[in-house]
Amino acid sequence: MFIKFLTTGGTIDKVYFDALSDYEVGDSPIKQVLSEGLVAFEYEVVPLLQKDSLEMTNEDRRLLRDYIVADDGDKYVITHGTDTMPETAEALTDLAEKTIVLTGALTPARFRTTDAVFNVGMAVAAVQACSPGVYIAMSGQVFPAGAVRKNRAENRFEPL
Amino acid sequence: MFIKFLTTGGTIDKVYFDALSDYEVGDSPIKQVLSEGLVAFEYEVVPLLQKDSLEMTNEDRRLLRDYIVADDGDKYVITHGTDTMPETAEALTDLAEKTIVLTGALTPARFRTTDAVFNVGMAVAAVQACSPGVYIAMSGQVFPAGAVRKNRAENRFEPL
Amino acid sequence: MFIKFLTTGGTIDKVYFDALSDYEVGDSPIKQVLSEGLVAFEYEVVPLLQKDSLEMTNEDRRLLRDYIVADDGDKYVITHGTDTMPETAEALTDLAEKTIVLTGALTPARFRTTDAVFNVGMAVAAVQACSPGVYIAMSGQVFPAGAVRKNRAENRFEPL
Amino acid sequence: MFIKFLTTGGTIDKVYFDALSDYEVGDSPIKQVLSEGLVAFEYEVVPLLQKDSLEMTNEDRRLLRDYIVADDGDKYVITHGTDTMPETAEALTDLAEKTIVLTGALTPARFRTTDAVFNVGMAVAAVQACSPGVYIAMSGQVFPAGAVRKNRAENRFEPL
Repeated sequence: MFIKFLTTGGTIDKVYFDALSDYEVGDSPIKQVLSEGLVAFEYEVVPLLQKDSLEMTNEDRRLLRDYIVADDGDKYVITHGTDTMPETAEALTDLAEKTIVLTGALTPARFRTTDAVFNVGMAVAAVQACSPGVYIAMSGQVFPAGAVRKNRAENRFEPL
Repeated sequence: MFIKFLTTGGTIDKVYFDALSDYEVGDSPIKQVLSEGLVAFEYEVVPLLQKDSLEMTNEDRRLLRDYIVADDGDKYVITHGTDTMPETAEALTDLAEKTIVLTGALTPARFRTTDAVFNVGMAVAAVQACSPGVYIAMSGQVFPAGAVRKNRAENRFEPL
Repeated sequence: MFIKFLTTGGTIDKVYFDALSDYEVGDSPIKQVLSEGLVAFEYEVVPLLQKDSLEMTNEDRRLLRDYIVADDGDKYVITHGTDTMPETAEALTDLAEKTIVLTGALTPARFRTTDAVFNVGMAVAAVQACSPGVYIAMSGQVFPAGAVRKNRAENRFEPL
Repeated sequence: MFIKFLTTGGTIDKVYFDALSDYEVGDSPIKQVLSEGLVAFEYEVVPLLQKDSLEMTNEDRRLLRDYIVADDGDKYVITHGTDTMPETAEALTDLAEKTIVLTGALTPARFRTTDAVFNVGMAVAAVQACSPGVYIAMSGQVFPAGAVRKNRAENRFEPL
């Protein structure tokens, strides 16, 4: 089995820089999360974008879609900021033969307590178990694209 | 969605007791793992057994099977010691309409670095995404019961 | 033995708020750090200020000094942002009979990898072991006030 | 400043081995703890023994004492099992010009929640701030050798 991980930024990748007293998107922690999960499959991590998801444009989404169309794999896990994850998921639908799962985190992966590890675990299982299509794995659930939204007030994902 | 978690002991539940200078099966950390995963579905945790999996008997497996048969749920995640997880998985097959995923950990959940959180994330996604049947979610992969073994020397699960 | 902890904000207290996609000073994690250190002495935590240390004014420092002068304790650990910790330390000198140790963190205490726990451990030992006076415990060292600066480029504290 | 760290085993060094379903003394995590503490002083880590402290013999203590006598340093932090830490501390007294601080952990350093990081922070500060002599840094306190015992029932160190 081979999974390609595409990272695009968002909270999951956020790092704290003391010099700036600020908190910015940094290198993706995805390899460390997979190493902690003791995964024994083949994979590649491609850092495609480094953006807050509120800054994700239609061009960024086209880039992501074009990348997957041109690529010869069939299983993709995309780490993404949570605010516009549902929009990006919908922009990736109708790619026959490809299973795509988006995930991310409500708390940065570098925190002692974070949902990042659990969520990437979910995404890795979903990309193997689901039939071709686009899904979001967040809040302990696997949602089909187009049937999910982020409830900002409750800080969770829920069915539309 | 409702998932029932059955805990049976094993490394995932191991706790260190300084008074004994020893390391024994303790209370299951499953609720803490689910809380860290910020899950937003309904669930119940039932502590069924507290055993090293090498001590798991056929009677224990019958108990587990009887429990699930008598229960009216359809999604079960079982945390289990890794050494005999494949045997227990096979003992639970042929239960129509039920999806059962076994998982555990090679390193205790209370460690700073552990595969427990990732593995439970995988199990939670697999129990939703897989068709009825019995599966093992370990080493980053979702295996059908009967098609997986633990490679002790390499400390990982692999296809038979 | 009794130690009073005064918290004033800074990186050690920083929390990530997903709703804001921002990282702000929050409740002090000092009680959790002391609980993790399994401390068996009496203490009290007083949240005095919640500021980035670059925003700390002379009035804030006077408030801190007045608080300590009026208080009847003799051992104080102050958690503080790192950028102006040396200035605040100097503003607290010449308080006879009081031992005061300032500490903080270059990485937020809520991170999986943080210097906060180590630093608070140092401060707790220093406030017991040092003679009355004002000290900074950072970068693995205990410096007397007035003899230390933060080297921003190297992200560490060093002797003047 | 230069500190020499001597490691001797004990809970602080304990590692879990899944293959054995057991929990044994492994490589010392002291370098990782110091790296997490962002220490900026010179140091060396010498792994002298790898023992549960209940197995520590008088010969082991003589070895430790002989090592320190023959060594030309003046600041030593010794990580040690907690059960006989007070005995070892007493066996090291009367070494003029040397400051020696023993510390350890009630929970292994590799746990997510451990007193190891806090305790090593305390020991590092105490070895700088204390006058020559032998001390134990545990339970949030710095005790002189000969004036401290482990209260096993309460799982903490306290004055004699």
